Amino acid sequence: MSGRPGSKTRARILAVADGGRRAQSDYLATEEPLEIRLVVASATATVAVTMRTPGADFELAAGFLYGEGVVAGRGGIGRISYCTDPQVDAEQQYNIVNVGLTTEALPDLHALERHFMMSSACGVCGKASLDALELRGCPVVPPGPLLDPAVLLRLPEVLREGQGLFESTGGLHAAGLFTPEGELVALREDVGRHNAVDKLVGWALLDGRLPLHDHLLMVSGRSSYEILQKALVAGIPFVCAVSAPSSLAVSLARRFGMTLVGFLRGERFNVYAGEERLGLPAASSR
Amino acid sequence: MSGRPGSKTRARILAVADGGRRAQSDYLATEEPLEIRLVVASATATVAVTMRTPGADFELAAGFLYGEGVVAGRGGIGRISYCTDPQVDAEQQYNIVNVGLTTEALPDLHALERHFMMSSACGVCGKASLDALELRGCPVVPPGPLLDPAVLLRLPEVLREGQGLFESTGGLHAAGLFTPEGELVALREDVGRHNAVDKLVGWALLDGRLPLHDHLLMVSGRSSYEILQKALVAGIPFVCAVSAPSSLAVSLARRFGMTLVGFLRGERFNVYAGEERLGLPAASSR
Repeated sequence: MSGRPGSKTRARILAVADGGRRAQSDYLATEEPLEIRLVVASATATVAVTMRTPGADFELAAGFLYGEGVVAGRGGIGRISYCTDPQVDAEQQYNIVNVGLTTEALPDLHALERHFMMSSACGVCGKASLDALELRGCPVVPPGPLLDPAVLLRLPEVLREGQGLFESTGGLHAAGLFTPEGELVALREDVGRHNAVDKLVGWALLDGRLPLHDHLLMVSGRSSYEILQKALVAGIPFVCAVSAPSSLAVSLARRFGMTLVGFLRGERFNVYAGEERLGLPAASSR
Repeated sequence: MSGRPGSKTRARILAVADGGRRAQSDYLATEEPLEIRLVVASATATVAVTMRTPGADFELAAGFLYGEGVVAGRGGIGRISYCTDPQVDAEQQYNIVNVGLTTEALPDLHALERHFMMSSACGVCGKASLDALELRGCPVVPPGPLLDPAVLLRLPEVLREGQGLFESTGGLHAAGLFTPEGELVALREDVGRHNAVDKLVGWALLDGRLPLHDHLLMVSGRSSYEILQKALVAGIPFVCAVSAPSSLAVSLARRFGMTLVGFLRGERFNVYAGEERLGLPAASSR
């Protein structure tokens, strides 16, 4: 097991402050590639390599495959394991996850590749990216629960308190899944924001909890198309972020009936889509 | 020209603060896909689609291709243009960049694909990723200039002041190229951190300024493998970030003789690699 990479890595660094310097030991967020392989009886194929923080690797692989539409649900996945190929160096075995599929044959990876590229004969644009999600069968999310704004204001602190790795490394994104009452259900961390969300969705998939219609996703940074897309596929109606959303994140949320909140800090936040899910005060008289 | 997407997008949002709500107009950082196509006399091929903030698209395409080793220098690139295919919708033409190559034939895109995947028969790991860079011919960066720590401390403010888009959207990453004296040479912004660096390197490539041995790169967020790799390929010896580096960013910097600074805030910073490029005070007596 000695080759197994940890979620944090110790390093000697030099801290410079107020004109002085001091050598010290510090923790870094580990970043290592993870290769995700699909396995059926007769074949194996690599579908992706992503730079990630080791930990929850099976969930990351499952969440990634679900988010990309490679598997349609828990039933599509068989056994998940680290690579045990004796030809692979011990230190690399934990950077390869084999996902057994319950199908006879591998999916059409060429189609998958085209999907990853989001390319089409008629060009690419934000609207076309949203059209593609609709074509994949992503439904508008159901109305879902009504949220108390006071609950929202408490989420950033709960997320931060749950971030054990961030505490020691200062270098990780977090994604947290909450109930409408603001209770933290699960939290995952990663150097990659999208990986943190994949880990969370993968956990829910493997635990038989999808779709997550009765949940809220909170991310530590900004919200982009990719984050909203992963939330949509998992059926999450409510996405909150500490920082700003992108234009396409807002377009996606509006098109698919999701609620998107940004700049959730202190006593304030902005609502970019789906305000009907928030029990908001009446408009200010101005 | 009406279809050309801007770098920021106006949207109606709802601001909630201190128990009140107010509808207002706000700017979002635009996020739209960009398709990068390679063009030779006899053929065209898509090499990548990336979600980016419109603006400096030619530089982004050039920097991306250079960073991935598709082109070896300025001479490998011919004409760069937006798509003018009449079959492509007007609103999508500005999301497709055609990069003319000066070669007769397209590069081996299958090899490229394998490169993107960083996959190999013997598995993947951080060390293998660094080995791959060495195999691509990335040399250890030369010693380069000595930097005054006082210059470093001024960089975050200069970067922030130069971030016009961040100012209005609060949602963009920035990458700035500086001289050893702390003068800002160029700055690029994007929803994707890697895109901001590609735009900067692409600008330098198209302007005939590579390698950037006498420069410093400063990024607004964290530093990861990807950021360090792009800096290395461009020959930049010195990388600074406002936030934490990942373990693999530190390994890369140490292996290739680069200087890596993180947590550059206020009157302090951490040096993770290459302290010899900094004129540092003597060690504190403790």
